[in-house]
Amino acid sequence: MSAIPVIALHGGAGTILRSAMSTDAEARYHAALGDILRAGQRVLADGGSALDAVTEAVRLLEDCPLFNAGHGAVFTAAGTHELDASIMDGATLDAGAISCVTRVRNPVRAARRVLDVSEHVMFTGAGAEAFAQAQGLQFVDPSYFHTDARYQQWLNARGQSGTLLDHDAATRAAQESHQTGEDDPIDPKKKFGTVGAVALDARGHLAAATSTGGMTNKQAGRVGDAPLIGAGCYANDATCAVSTTGTGEMFIRMLAAYDVSAQMEYRGLTLQAAAEDVVMRKLPRIDGRGGLIAVDARGNVTLPFNTEGMYRGFARVGEQAVTAIYRS
Amino acid sequence: MSAIPVIALHGGAGTILRSAMSTDAEARYHAALGDILRAGQRVLADGGSALDAVTEAVRLLEDCPLFNAGHGAVFTAAGTHELDASIMDGATLDAGAISCVTRVRNPVRAARRVLDVSEHVMFTGAGAEAFAQAQGLQFVDPSYFHTDARYQQWLNARGQSGTLLDHDAATRAAQESHQTGEDDPIDPKKKFGTVGAVALDARGHLAAATSTGGMTNKQAGRVGDAPLIGAGCYANDATCAVSTTGTGEMFIRMLAAYDVSAQMEYRGLTLQAAAEDVVMRKLPRIDGRGGLIAVDARGNVTLPFNTEGMYRGFARVGEQAVTAIYRS
Repeated sequence: MSAIPVIALHGGAGTILRSAMSTDAEARYHAALGDILRAGQRVLADGGSALDAVTEAVRLLEDCPLFNAGHGAVFTAAGTHELDASIMDGATLDAGAISCVTRVRNPVRAARRVLDVSEHVMFTGAGAEAFAQAQGLQFVDPSYFHTDARYQQWLNARGQSGTLLDHDAATRAAQESHQTGEDDPIDPKKKFGTVGAVALDARGHLAAATSTGGMTNKQAGRVGDAPLIGAGCYANDATCAVSTTGTGEMFIRMLAAYDVSAQMEYRGLTLQAAAEDVVMRKLPRIDGRGGLIAVDARGNVTLPFNTEGMYRGFARVGEQAVTAIYRS
Repeated sequence: MSAIPVIALHGGAGTILRSAMSTDAEARYHAALGDILRAGQRVLADGGSALDAVTEAVRLLEDCPLFNAGHGAVFTAAGTHELDASIMDGATLDAGAISCVTRVRNPVRAARRVLDVSEHVMFTGAGAEAFAQAQGLQFVDPSYFHTDARYQQWLNARGQSGTLLDHDAATRAAQESHQTGEDDPIDPKKKFGTVGAVALDARGHLAAATSTGGMTNKQAGRVGDAPLIGAGCYANDATCAVSTTGTGEMFIRMLAAYDVSAQMEYRGLTLQAAAEDVVMRKLPRIDGRGGLIAVDARGNVTLPFNTEGMYRGFARVGEQAVTAIYRS
């Protein structure tokens, strides 16, 4: 393989309005995305695997309070945090996923351990925590996941109509929070908040990982697309690696991540054409809103979304990291 | 639509050896499959929807102790029962799924309620039970799921090497249980036990449903393919309805159910060719063992499997039900 190793990541999509975003907030998002891209870039530059690069990038996204995963995850209707993550290795089609964990500091590391050592692909709830504990992963008190910004979003969501469900409500909330000077402008992230990474390594292998705290004020036990292989995460060296973010239910029903791969394999589409078809044509048919990041074995990268914005970026080894928030 | 409505179902695949099966046991399986097919047939003959037909057929499979779902589900490593189910409507691509419930009598009904009334697609664990309870579904004491045959299988599995993992172990166990005169010959169902139904109704709509008790002696919290849309269950009026059974992890990694649809849509394959490719070529590449049942909008039915046997059958409205167990 002669393609230059590359990593791409996202930090959620939604009604991210320039008008509702302070210059300071913008700068913080660009800086966080850039830092994490460079960390992933270093893994790849040092000859690390795509699997290691996406694990590390998503771990850092989980640790960053700006994004809805790990520290900074949104609150459920019960005022708790339930975290989901998944990861897939394009070289072997091995995969790992966990859902509804509440005390694992880095859900993506638990998913990675499932991939590495378990004969199973997915664990949920107490069984997932027991697995993570047996694997020696770091546990935290649930209060670790608390951030004041997310708590305020939760209070706002409860004050309105429970879970923010529609785009209008999201836009309204974004504008309200702007008017009140609230710092995080992306109330739609209540719905569309997910983080993810995809990478191509020097040996031509692909990998993808996705992690999330779900929807603000969601019903307990709701599982979105993030921990579901083929919906929120997919990787196959023969085609592409994909991580999605958006209205999870529609991404599940469309098998959004796998569908990019299937259209490349079975229709012979390019990465960009396949990703475009899923995000701009198939998902909108069922009101699916959001986006995805994808990379193929030739190093092509595409980051399409059908919302106002998506926190995103990519970095090739030896080149500057590129980060973006809005459509243009 | 002029195609005759049809329903197909499966009760699990695995090393079902004629040599290990008593004539009585064979007759019981044929009778149960036939009765349930006729019940589904009646729903369709009365003008019922494919969605109603698969819900009713899977409910009856759950209630039948011969199959690994609902009453008759296998035991987890903790000696408990954890049940999963999913359902999808080909007309709307709506879907519902629940995993790891322990007290819902008919998991497929809970999945159906998720499809019917929830904005979400999937619930797990306590949240799934809370949803089912709020929907007024029937709850049972966990002892309802106990059957002596499954308890004996569990004791045997624990006496051996924990979960029966490989095909050889399964064959060995089947032979041992035959030698000891144990009634249920299909120890591989410890691994491959799932039930499912697919149907085409008079309006040309397709639906699929899948339900399982998982693997005997499985680790708590393990989620297989049965509750995962695209892996264990998929339906789309434009292509097909599919329910799978087998080594769940490989069906997840291959998105087995959706892949049949994708190969029809993107490669233009027939239902039979697409299903054959998934079961006989793609799954074996990663040691995936099992089978699937599928129907398309023209009323074509295919029931491929790569194991020694699969409990299966189909019935067109106005025709005799056909049931089978072995390869030939």
